[in-house]
Amino acid sequence: MEKSNSLCVVMGVIGLGARGSSIIKMLAKMKDVRIKYLCDIYKDRTEAAQASVFHYTGYKPDIVTDYKVILADEQVQAVLILTSWETHIKMAVEAMNSGKYAGIEVGGAYDIKDCFSLVEAYENTGIPCMMLENCCYGKYELMVKNMVEKGMFGEIIHCSGGYMHDLRKEVAYGNENRHYRLRNYISRNCDNYPTHELGPIAKILKINKGNRMLSVYSISSKARGLSHFIHEEKKDDLDLYNTVFKQGDIITSVIRCLNGETITLTLDTTLPRFYSRGFSISGTKARYQEDGNLIFIDKKHNNFHFLSRLFYNNAALYLRRYMHPIWKRFKNEGVKGGHGGMDYLVLRAFLEAVRDRTETPIDVYDSASWMAITALSEKSIIEDSPIQIPDFTNGKWKDRKPFEGKYSLD
Amino acid sequence: MEKSNSLCVVMGVIGLGARGSSIIKMLAKMKDVRIKYLCDIYKDRTEAAQASVFHYTGYKPDIVTDYKVILADEQVQAVLILTSWETHIKMAVEAMNSGKYAGIEVGGAYDIKDCFSLVEAYENTGIPCMMLENCCYGKYELMVKNMVEKGMFGEIIHCSGGYMHDLRKEVAYGNENRHYRLRNYISRNCDNYPTHELGPIAKILKINKGNRMLSVYSISSKARGLSHFIHEEKKDDLDLYNTVFKQGDIITSVIRCLNGETITLTLDTTLPRFYSRGFSISGTKARYQEDGNLIFIDKKHNNFHFLSRLFYNNAALYLRRYMHPIWKRFKNEGVKGGHGGMDYLVLRAFLEAVRDRTETPIDVYDSASWMAITALSEKSIIEDSPIQIPDFTNGKWKDRKPFEGKYSLD
Repeated sequence: MEKSNSLCVVMGVIGLGARGSSIIKMLAKMKDVRIKYLCDIYKDRTEAAQASVFHYTGYKPDIVTDYKVILADEQVQAVLILTSWETHIKMAVEAMNSGKYAGIEVGGAYDIKDCFSLVEAYENTGIPCMMLENCCYGKYELMVKNMVEKGMFGEIIHCSGGYMHDLRKEVAYGNENRHYRLRNYISRNCDNYPTHELGPIAKILKINKGNRMLSVYSISSKARGLSHFIHEEKKDDLDLYNTVFKQGDIITSVIRCLNGETITLTLDTTLPRFYSRGFSISGTKARYQEDGNLIFIDKKHNNFHFLSRLFYNNAALYLRRYMHPIWKRFKNEGVKGGHGGMDYLVLRAFLEAVRDRTETPIDVYDSASWMAITALSEKSIIEDSPIQIPDFTNGKWKDRKPFEGKYSLD
Repeated sequence: MEKSNSLCVVMGVIGLGARGSSIIKMLAKMKDVRIKYLCDIYKDRTEAAQASVFHYTGYKPDIVTDYKVILADEQVQAVLILTSWETHIKMAVEAMNSGKYAGIEVGGAYDIKDCFSLVEAYENTGIPCMMLENCCYGKYELMVKNMVEKGMFGEIIHCSGGYMHDLRKEVAYGNENRHYRLRNYISRNCDNYPTHELGPIAKILKINKGNRMLSVYSISSKARGLSHFIHEEKKDDLDLYNTVFKQGDIITSVIRCLNGETITLTLDTTLPRFYSRGFSISGTKARYQEDGNLIFIDKKHNNFHFLSRLFYNNAALYLRRYMHPIWKRFKNEGVKGGHGGMDYLVLRAFLEAVRDRTETPIDVYDSASWMAITALSEKSIIEDSPIQIPDFTNGKWKDRKPFEGKYSLD
């Protein structure tokens, strides 16, 4: 019954909340993966996940409540860490120290030292660690990257993006009050989720491979969105009714890069709005912006530059010609997985690196420097000062080579 | 032949470049304005303007090359200062000191002291000074303001905007090389044009009347757009070919306000792109954003929050119901003037204040604090540090009363 093909990646999955349960389904459908362990402290979650895997595969993974059991099993090649933000780095470090590839879900760091510990674990063990930043594999993010690589954008000057997603309900209701977001929104104020779109931007700007982020300055608006929501929608929850949230509704961060580019990041998760990652790339020859889904190409659109409304969604027309090879292949195989395919692609990128024992397309230096923005933005808000961003590569950014492989983002 | 109606505003116009010549035409068509003087150092400009006024009115204003002649004429009630940025404040101060209302075209300050001199001149003379920030009268800016005043946005949390306008041609070619922009782009690096959209945003946030801007932090991208353009389009201009531009292509500024709101401003004038002022207003109950021309209303659009593309341009539907009274009146009278009517409205707002001897809807404190952002952003970029924004009202912001009148923005 169990798959034991040597091409199979044997893995454990830690954390089976909302995200975990959707990833489990994707994994279970992959023929070259064997989910040996499911780990969570809540029994209802592990049992539901086990049933889900059984449904798709006919086998039942072992249920554990202690992830160290997984790390002690020599058969296991990789773990997916889909837990609350607080535990991502600690578990990833332990995974690498146990010789297992660590795939960590999106989230930020609490302390810059944790980011260094991630790098240290990789450098000591040689075992890769990859943040599963799905937006790096977004359809438009990759299309724009493809066009940038073809030189169509000229020299890149400025990029912006963020996580603009109304999460009031999710934060206030959580998942049976087990939601990690709530305690974070109560206890700290920072860009708690910077890597959409810092990930895709960093890849375009070749951060850690020829370029570096130098400093970040963040400001926070007041915090009103959650209280306003709770006062209207969740009046009876007396605890929450009187809760003071530290997390400002909108955090704006500005980042300077060594090669002269600037990046603007926005976190906007507790106010009503349309979802957007606000992705934009400005170069000397072209610009893309997600809001309006607009591409502007120099010498082509100049006579129409006051007519943006007529061009809304014109970027969709460029997909035909400039869709990234990763996406073309993926479309040909039939789009699978959540979030418009990104989740599937980032998982495959990780799993195939594990299978082939290669580096990962998003590596430990990427993961550390992107996650660091959370801790540094918190410090910046407290000190009202720009904060230096450490060079996690310790100088190696100058001549690090591109990752070669099917899922390369370099 | 000359109009001498006592209801006529008698004025002088200083500066007759591209902007001046379009304003002259609007003024000449107004029956309650008498343009007594036209002033510029270039004869071709004054003669063209004179011919234009004659064409519309049948009278010929006096031509002067020295604006002091205008200031010395007791008949003149107001001057419009449409000169290069460098001279705006100096001339406005002299105008107020001569007892004449000063209307100054959009631009930023070079030194914070100049902003104080503007305030001082007003406080000493009691003569108003108004920056002619046309975007304060933009159709969508005013509609959103109207909705905000009706409480539809809830509490305002964050605003953004900027001047995103590809001016490469204008800067590189200028107007027979008389263009003031060129020397500015060569010699300094700052948000040189912050008041679109800071003006409309400041009015919504009640800056200087119950609220204050506290600090600004600005970063600059590298400067590549103009050189790239010149190397491609103006190869033969050897001076320009080798010119080094100090002005970064994209300047991002973040501003903190006393009441907890934050503002993001962008200057983006030397790269290819669609025009946008990137106006956005986020409140606890709704959001407007210019890019996509989207309105999102809590409890109305929540089920569609992932479908922004289907709602592009939905803000246009709100014009019918929420068009600002200023605009409704204006539409009924038939839209006139440049930039979709804004130019006409801001001019009328100024002229009617002169005619009625009232304060102006954009006053000296607004003008000083908005223009100050240019000087402060320059300092911030040099020092890589947030810079405090002075309180030009010297504490009066706490209980300053709204401007009452047909063109009120309070």
